[in-house]
Amino acid sequence: MAIITLTTDFGPGPFAGIMKGVILGIHPEARLVDLCHQVPPHEVRFGAVVLEQALETFPPGTVHLAVVDPGVGTERLPICVQSLGRFFVGPDNGLFTPALLADPGAKTWRLDNSDLFRHPVSRTFHGRDIFAPVAAHLALGLDPEKLGPRQKTPRLLDWPQPSQSANELTGIVTGEDSFGNLATNLPRRLVHGFLDGDPGVFKLGGFATIQGISHTYGQGEKGAPLALFNSLDRLEFALNQGNLRHRLGFDPGRAYGQTVRVTRVKH
Amino acid sequence: MAIITLTTDFGPGPFAGIMKGVILGIHPEARLVDLCHQVPPHEVRFGAVVLEQALETFPPGTVHLAVVDPGVGTERLPICVQSLGRFFVGPDNGLFTPALLADPGAKTWRLDNSDLFRHPVSRTFHGRDIFAPVAAHLALGLDPEKLGPRQKTPRLLDWPQPSQSANELTGIVTGEDSFGNLATNLPRRLVHGFLDGDPGVFKLGGFATIQGISHTYGQGEKGAPLALFNSLDRLEFALNQGNLRHRLGFDPGRAYGQTVRVTRVKH
Amino acid sequence: MAIITLTTDFGPGPFAGIMKGVILGIHPEARLVDLCHQVPPHEVRFGAVVLEQALETFPPGTVHLAVVDPGVGTERLPICVQSLGRFFVGPDNGLFTPALLADPGAKTWRLDNSDLFRHPVSRTFHGRDIFAPVAAHLALGLDPEKLGPRQKTPRLLDWPQPSQSANELTGIVTGEDSFGNLATNLPRRLVHGFLDGDPGVFKLGGFATIQGISHTYGQGEKGAPLALFNSLDRLEFALNQGNLRHRLGFDPGRAYGQTVRVTRVKH
Repeated sequence: MAIITLTTDFGPGPFAGIMKGVILGIHPEARLVDLCHQVPPHEVRFGAVVLEQALETFPPGTVHLAVVDPGVGTERLPICVQSLGRFFVGPDNGLFTPALLADPGAKTWRLDNSDLFRHPVSRTFHGRDIFAPVAAHLALGLDPEKLGPRQKTPRLLDWPQPSQSANELTGIVTGEDSFGNLATNLPRRLVHGFLDGDPGVFKLGGFATIQGISHTYGQGEKGAPLALFNSLDRLEFALNQGNLRHRLGFDPGRAYGQTVRVTRVKH
Repeated sequence: MAIITLTTDFGPGPFAGIMKGVILGIHPEARLVDLCHQVPPHEVRFGAVVLEQALETFPPGTVHLAVVDPGVGTERLPICVQSLGRFFVGPDNGLFTPALLADPGAKTWRLDNSDLFRHPVSRTFHGRDIFAPVAAHLALGLDPEKLGPRQKTPRLLDWPQPSQSANELTGIVTGEDSFGNLATNLPRRLVHGFLDGDPGVFKLGGFATIQGISHTYGQGEKGAPLALFNSLDRLEFALNQGNLRHRLGFDPGRAYGQTVRVTRVKH
Repeated sequence: MAIITLTTDFGPGPFAGIMKGVILGIHPEARLVDLCHQVPPHEVRFGAVVLEQALETFPPGTVHLAVVDPGVGTERLPICVQSLGRFFVGPDNGLFTPALLADPGAKTWRLDNSDLFRHPVSRTFHGRDIFAPVAAHLALGLDPEKLGPRQKTPRLLDWPQPSQSANELTGIVTGEDSFGNLATNLPRRLVHGFLDGDPGVFKLGGFATIQGISHTYGQGEKGAPLALFNSLDRLEFALNQGNLRHRLGFDPGRAYGQTVRVTRVKH
């Protein structure tokens, strides 16, 4: 088996398909899976959150090819990251931050071996000319040491961690889905540990103050705000049968960074 | 061969890809085909119409995985339907109504065998944790009796049937495509039988009154309304080189249920 | 290996998936690659530009199935073009113009052998009933002479070529991508030959006058217009970190045909 996933900001045009043509020319048996091609243009952090969601779902050996690459053709490096037994191929611009943070033993290589590339290498479409062929070779079993030298300091995005005081747990909104639900960086375990049996009060910016955790999106009154743990086991805010992002007036991708606070009912 | 199709209201995000990762982890050789991920959020009936269109196109043995699931994590059951030799895996909320109606011998199982699931099973993403792994096992040839007990009364949506009087045949709009054509529940055979050689008068609500059936979308004047039989052999309304849904001012999915009447030119 | 790509104006509905069902029923091992299903409805030229971009990326033997077909069911013919060792299957309406122009030895067959079709053949969905099964049979290795008789004069769209005077090179905008970059029909070699070492002045309609070629999208000031050579080695206009199509107020697909002029700094 050799799965290659694709994540880009290319939208509905033919560029993603063109990368697949290059891959299948090298590795006709590769299993290709689209993760997301609707990353908002140049939104590296959005792409990083997409990859984070897929990190542990795909089997070890999977190659995640990701191209959200506003700096294509500039001095930014092309890299491959190996983390938790998966490979990540794309630009060194922070797109692989969650993969790098998830595995203390993660390794990074600079893509330096131009024998693996499609020629001539354009300055504007490294997805086709560098990343797709390298992903295909990795899926065929290429030893990553043949990609190029190790890259000791791959770029990391600022990736905020939760903070905790005696009376408050603080996080941020990190993602959203097409239903308008807003995910946070607060893991279930941390929230449960902080609450220690208290039902909890959950605040999203100045908008919603919710008491108690729901178990499903369909709980409570229609249109009522909910706090629940999502499929990544993180705290998430939602509206019962509604779109919370729309209600709050955020454009796609723009709710990122909103402050989230958890306190206890009983002080 | 083991085809698994996917139909969801997940939109362009990574959730559909994540289900594919789970499937390929269990069944690396599965052939994955996206049917539609743009079902409007929570519109179960829209999803049912998508599946109806695919019902006889895919070969027997195909597994149709469908997740339009506003009740995820509540008491609604996860089920598998077997109809016309195809399998349908998803929530018991009416999504499989056309499959159940199409085959008097259709069987339904409750998904009760948690050995088949991905663990831990979340309360919010049964697509990943229950439906995707079950679909993968079925595509590998699992005996459906191993899924769980029979479900005698799977939920059915109200699925309006045409009605006929001496002078009128009445149906409704049941679907739409991306060109804005509006399909109905009136089969060609029924319409031909009713008209019995008469050219026919076709009325869509108060809007269009059309005399005679066209054979192609490109017939008549540009912008003129047409009635024709579509690729499912059902009566359909369209505009020559135009978008009828836009013209009538319906939002996507909102033309459903509009009344359609067929009468004869000669009384 | 047997790759079949799909290009349509079907949008996000199930029609593309339904064609895949037909293909896999005939050729279970076919490798299916979506090129683009968001061709604006009935925009044959847009579809032709999509296919042009894929022409040399996919390996010889690839079958490109394309359905942008406003004349479905009328007297327009269904055809297969063989060009540069690739096959193109779809309607004879100009969709394969770049493929026909790219290879002086290109051959065209009329799809006349109804043994290869899905029956009954509808008047409204030749993608499912004619083009998909023919593409599947070609991918299985069918001799194209068995498709039907040769079609000597396949339809060609008007496909404007650059023109050159002593002081000016003139072309047009031929395409766009999801970043809003506008591609032209001026190849790098032609531009370089004309400029002969001069840095060049690049004009797009009355909007942008740019001196000198950039090498990457990220060059210069944020929001500044750029001229560069794109991944097809054609002159392209862009905004640094911006969307040029939006800035100019063109709807998707509507920038086509804008005049582009290249002159020299030194006369």
